[in-house]
Amino acid sequence: MSKQGLSSVSSSKLAEYVSTNPWQIRKDFSYFGDFGTRGVGYNIENLARQIKRILRLDTPRKTALVGVGNLGSAIMSYTGFGTYGFEITAAFDNDPDKIGRKINGVTIENISAIGTLGSRRVDMAIIAVPEQAAQEVADALVRAGIKGILNFSPRRIVVPKKIKVITIDIATDLARLPYYI
Amino acid sequence: MSKQGLSSVSSSKLAEYVSTNPWQIRKDFSYFGDFGTRGVGYNIENLARQIKRILRLDTPRKTALVGVGNLGSAIMSYTGFGTYGFEITAAFDNDPDKIGRKINGVTIENISAIGTLGSRRVDMAIIAVPEQAAQEVADALVRAGIKGILNFSPRRIVVPKKIKVITIDIATDLARLPYYI
Repeated sequence: MSKQGLSSVSSSKLAEYVSTNPWQIRKDFSYFGDFGTRGVGYNIENLARQIKRILRLDTPRKTALVGVGNLGSAIMSYTGFGTYGFEITAAFDNDPDKIGRKINGVTIENISAIGTLGSRRVDMAIIAVPEQAAQEVADALVRAGIKGILNFSPRRIVVPKKIKVITIDIATDLARLPYYI
Repeated sequence: MSKQGLSSVSSSKLAEYVSTNPWQIRKDFSYFGDFGTRGVGYNIENLARQIKRILRLDTPRKTALVGVGNLGSAIMSYTGFGTYGFEITAAFDNDPDKIGRKINGVTIENISAIGTLGSRRVDMAIIAVPEQAAQEVADALVRAGIKGILNFSPRRIVVPKKIKVITIDIATDLARLPYYI
């Protein structure tokens, strides 16, 4: 909306956009403070800033990628991370043909160098390796001090409780469709 | 669990697995019928069959893929779809170098042939094209009679209300991590 040159938005408009009720929008925001003005709505720039703060997306985050196959390459070429302040600053693979190559300005490193992440201020990682390697990679990431993992492997990975893991399984997402069609 | 040779499971065990309470498990299942036996729990094979039936995952589904770049290639090589009865039976791209090539037994077709899907019993599609092409592809899929779309493009696509769209945006998934770390 900001890009479209709009400066304020009503709770009704926001509700429509995310398929809920205006009162739910107002109630949810009210937990975090007083963002809106009655009759005017929400200032868009301020609202975006507040939401980013609440979700802790207001500081840049360095992210590592492990596994530069088809999926990993797609992730490295993806341009949408900047919106949330993410930057992929490290990439690892075990294929000698890939190590040393550069994608989007990032040089692919030997997977054995994951341990160096701890001293490089990287605290999030994306796992895009084959299923059977996922747990081993997760273990190495945890040892390197990574605190959050986005896991694209269909294998359930086991990590200490303080590490947050979000798993993306394409088949499970696809499996949500048949119910509706 | 079935693969591990187990034949029954308690609501407590199921609750632990999905991080909820046993009574929530029992309550949720009770909406759909009487699946469990007091003191014994649920027969795993029967439960899996019932859940697949409820989610309409009990019939094989043919799926088309549009866009065979890095992401599309990763999707075509992905082996997890069979669990839910999905099969990618068609793939489309506009790159002459890709058209005619085969991945996992599926020959990549010219994107102009999307219209043929209607007569090929394909009712779901995956969009993995660049952002600026997503809407045009969605329109063609709708015209071809596709009823459900899994959209990997960060662009919001507009389709008639009767078409179900699930959008996967990697950046949004990654954006869920910082709150926890």
